[in-house]
Amino acid sequence: MANIAFFGLGNMGGPMAANLIKSGHQVTVYDLFPEAVEKLVALGAKTAETPALIVQNSDIVISMLPAGKHVFDLYLGNEGLIQVLKEGTLVIDSSTIDSATSIKTAQGLQSKNIHFIDAPVSGGVAGATAGTLSFMVGGTKQNFETAKSILDVMGKNIFHAGNVGAGQVAKACNNMLLSILMVGTSEALQLGIDNGLDPKVLSEIMSNSSGSNWTLDVYNPCPGVSEGVPSSNNYQGGFMTDLMAKDLGLAMDTAVQSHSSTPLGGLSRSLYALHQRAGNGKKDFSSIFEQFSAKS
Amino acid sequence: MANIAFFGLGNMGGPMAANLIKSGHQVTVYDLFPEAVEKLVALGAKTAETPALIVQNSDIVISMLPAGKHVFDLYLGNEGLIQVLKEGTLVIDSSTIDSATSIKTAQGLQSKNIHFIDAPVSGGVAGATAGTLSFMVGGTKQNFETAKSILDVMGKNIFHAGNVGAGQVAKACNNMLLSILMVGTSEALQLGIDNGLDPKVLSEIMSNSSGSNWTLDVYNPCPGVSEGVPSSNNYQGGFMTDLMAKDLGLAMDTAVQSHSSTPLGGLSRSLYALHQRAGNGKKDFSSIFEQFSAKS
Amino acid sequence: MANIAFFGLGNMGGPMAANLIKSGHQVTVYDLFPEAVEKLVALGAKTAETPALIVQNSDIVISMLPAGKHVFDLYLGNEGLIQVLKEGTLVIDSSTIDSATSIKTAQGLQSKNIHFIDAPVSGGVAGATAGTLSFMVGGTKQNFETAKSILDVMGKNIFHAGNVGAGQVAKACNNMLLSILMVGTSEALQLGIDNGLDPKVLSEIMSNSSGSNWTLDVYNPCPGVSEGVPSSNNYQGGFMTDLMAKDLGLAMDTAVQSHSSTPLGGLSRSLYALHQRAGNGKKDFSSIFEQFSAKS
Amino acid sequence: MANIAFFGLGNMGGPMAANLIKSGHQVTVYDLFPEAVEKLVALGAKTAETPALIVQNSDIVISMLPAGKHVFDLYLGNEGLIQVLKEGTLVIDSSTIDSATSIKTAQGLQSKNIHFIDAPVSGGVAGATAGTLSFMVGGTKQNFETAKSILDVMGKNIFHAGNVGAGQVAKACNNMLLSILMVGTSEALQLGIDNGLDPKVLSEIMSNSSGSNWTLDVYNPCPGVSEGVPSSNNYQGGFMTDLMAKDLGLAMDTAVQSHSSTPLGGLSRSLYALHQRAGNGKKDFSSIFEQFSAKS
Repeated sequence: MANIAFFGLGNMGGPMAANLIKSGHQVTVYDLFPEAVEKLVALGAKTAETPALIVQNSDIVISMLPAGKHVFDLYLGNEGLIQVLKEGTLVIDSSTIDSATSIKTAQGLQSKNIHFIDAPVSGGVAGATAGTLSFMVGGTKQNFETAKSILDVMGKNIFHAGNVGAGQVAKACNNMLLSILMVGTSEALQLGIDNGLDPKVLSEIMSNSSGSNWTLDVYNPCPGVSEGVPSSNNYQGGFMTDLMAKDLGLAMDTAVQSHSSTPLGGLSRSLYALHQRAGNGKKDFSSIFEQFSAKS
Repeated sequence: MANIAFFGLGNMGGPMAANLIKSGHQVTVYDLFPEAVEKLVALGAKTAETPALIVQNSDIVISMLPAGKHVFDLYLGNEGLIQVLKEGTLVIDSSTIDSATSIKTAQGLQSKNIHFIDAPVSGGVAGATAGTLSFMVGGTKQNFETAKSILDVMGKNIFHAGNVGAGQVAKACNNMLLSILMVGTSEALQLGIDNGLDPKVLSEIMSNSSGSNWTLDVYNPCPGVSEGVPSSNNYQGGFMTDLMAKDLGLAMDTAVQSHSSTPLGGLSRSLYALHQRAGNGKKDFSSIFEQFSAKS
Repeated sequence: MANIAFFGLGNMGGPMAANLIKSGHQVTVYDLFPEAVEKLVALGAKTAETPALIVQNSDIVISMLPAGKHVFDLYLGNEGLIQVLKEGTLVIDSSTIDSATSIKTAQGLQSKNIHFIDAPVSGGVAGATAGTLSFMVGGTKQNFETAKSILDVMGKNIFHAGNVGAGQVAKACNNMLLSILMVGTSEALQLGIDNGLDPKVLSEIMSNSSGSNWTLDVYNPCPGVSEGVPSSNNYQGGFMTDLMAKDLGLAMDTAVQSHSSTPLGGLSRSLYALHQRAGNGKKDFSSIFEQFSAKS
Repeated sequence: MANIAFFGLGNMGGPMAANLIKSGHQVTVYDLFPEAVEKLVALGAKTAETPALIVQNSDIVISMLPAGKHVFDLYLGNEGLIQVLKEGTLVIDSSTIDSATSIKTAQGLQSKNIHFIDAPVSGGVAGATAGTLSFMVGGTKQNFETAKSILDVMGKNIFHAGNVGAGQVAKACNNMLLSILMVGTSEALQLGIDNGLDPKVLSEIMSNSSGSNWTLDVYNPCPGVSEGVPSSNNYQGGFMTDLMAKDLGLAMDTAVQSHSSTPLGGLSRSLYALHQRAGNGKKDFSSIFEQFSAKS
């Protein structure tokens, strides 16, 4: 069992840390919100006053933070952990951030012989709670292997995407594609409905044809077609529009830097920005369907 | 066994008629190209001088023609078959055309008590040859049931989409969505490649995540990722860009008429039009990937 | 002065006919709504019971109708005017319809040596009332010259776009481009506003730079930037979203038929369809700005 | 006359510095390429070994550099000019960079009471040479007034866009809109051509109608319509596709950060990225027309 420091106990980080505790690891946790810390302490976590004390005995540090600047600051800022981490520590950053910051952070830590992998997740709060997340990992093969036994506790699919930063790129690509599937499925279903088709019948036809895709098959955005998905629960739960908009922003940053052409991905970003501004940021991202189905 | 008249013996119609013959049906065939007719006659088909003679003893008429005007003319034009078809004949039109023409044709034939279903297919030449096409059928339940035993000879999945015209709508929706999947998958893969990822690794990650879709999973557009698909055969074979462009045109006509918003579908149409104009009309539609992967 | 028959006395046709009367022409009018006819009769128009009687003495027939099927029916339908029009009559169709119908109608009338030009307008109700419309004319040079003195009474700019149908194509191109200018200007202004710029200042900068365009310069969509435009009048008056959506549909039909790639035009159509479905069909088309400026 | 230090003597910076010299200012220049420096020295500029020596007597520092990181490094890097600039110096950065870097640089310099304005330009090499550039300035009113007499030497239109960073935002908005005008005009012209219209006639009609915009009216992308523009010179000269792609990247970064929806701007970025990858980076940006006009 490892000695793990865990930073960031939000909707995702909290249940991830809980799963580590349940599996018998020694986990020391940190968050700016005391209530978040208390919940984990009640499950058996330790805590401490400062980040430096948190990592005192850690072999592994995991972070789950909102944005690139938080990650960079935690490790390399004025009071960054680089000053206190032991040589050979493995840092697993599961935040969804831009790959450039992942690479810059890895390079900074490398100067003190501290290892770094980026390991963003997909699967949402439900996956974090159930321990069935997907991890997309960027880092050396050796660091990936070391991390795998830990990640297995929190996830089901652990992918090695490539070198440091590749985990972030893989997630950006996947979520950009996911948004395209969702918007495309929504407009195709509504086109059928507008021309008299039953969305259940049309969904079944397309799912069994070349239109088959994850959003159509298992996360149908049209209310009443599938049960147990956000569209049949007033678009509550699931993966918030705000988060999809954030991920699409990261994908666009990546595309701009590499001079990649992403016509459908860029358009999805703009459509989700419209949807967000119209007041739907907290709804599941499948609620984009409502933009197409509105009847004045 | 039924007495079937078959009009249109092109790349698709030819092998479809052949499968009907093989299964023991009495098939009388017609095409403007004598060689196309001769091939089928060699397999056991009958033929005759004029369309009117072709349908003389038919219980069922099948048509597989390039565009709506051909279908309308065959049945309702100046020398249309409506003048000679027996009451109670079932017309199965497998052409991919606009649903408005399907409906207009059905209504015209109805006046003489001739039954009509639209039954466009997907699955390409390979599916037509193997008898594994998908049929998307629009028509009454009774006509659908009558047709099913015939369609089963030529296809594997026989879907009842709704009333007359619904088959065409379902195909337009599916193929519009298919084009979105293809363009979206292409740009996502190239975004990964541009940022150092191996397309095989990225494809596997996304296929096992929420980016999963038919084009990524079984028809990967990036050369070298999958075997036995057009992208690994210089984009030869498969489903031609010209045909995808035609289907997207039908989808746009449908969307315009129903005031449906199809941002990604409309954009895919324009991207395929660009691809077509750049000289790629005869390549498989997955060759759109080359637009994104070009490196000046 | 000419003997003119005028069909279609709606928001546009009414004031157009009125201007013809004012200028001294002998005008006989027809509309399905008696009140519309009465208004013109009060101004000096004649009328009659049937279309055939309306055109009895006409040298020139003008039509201003909602859609292609109305135009085709008026001239070539079961009781079409072709049966009663004198040889050598000049038909001026100012309806905004698809160019294919214009061409088909011209060809039909040609068989009786009746001349036809398509002459759709821009300039709205205000332009129709003031007699300052723009006419985009398709037809022979001779017919154009004959029509010009009549059109001059109703409009300010009379353009000869080309052969029959070219007037419709020119209008479709212009209005597609107009919609792109409007959406593009709206998103550029809001991008500036979101980043702290004053829309008046930004408008002035761009109007004096390479961003200059008709919508920015004289029809600014951001409330408060210009006076006397719909955006400063709660988007009342002007050119309705519903009409822009109709014109974009005609542009898409044209693009599909000629295999033209129209990425921005197609996207504008879908954005206007979304806007329309959200309940904004009766607002001026500059109200698309509100989609971008919403703040949740 | 002022004592001016000028950093960055490329295609734009060189002629800008030359105009300052001609007007009698004392100009000390710096560039990494000795030949660029020599050209200006031949016109009367001074030079020196190091940046620190260059600014020794300067009241005003002007920079014209390729990207944000160069600007930040010049002023605030390890050997940044902040260490040697006199209190009260006015820094005019005419580079086209992201506004966030402009703001960060201004804040850094402010700590030593050094003033900063961002003043990106438009007008290209021709405008730089003729002294007819447009400057879009972000900064305090007082700094703007101080700079104006200097900027007047190099430009014709000097706009005050707002606070620091606003010049960059205004340029990003304008050039995003410019790209939309160019793509939209190109597709509208080709739609007309595909349907039989003469591009000269169509251009004149739209320029005199609501389709009027800068690219149509004075920079027509269709070869043969206008004289003296890049499209009539094989798309040589003008504003390179590579530079438009760079500016669109900056616009997208800005839009992502402010959660602004930019459907047409984002799509233009992707179309220019495709155009760039197809090998057209060095052609004028109006060459995007060739994508639409290709005939396979």
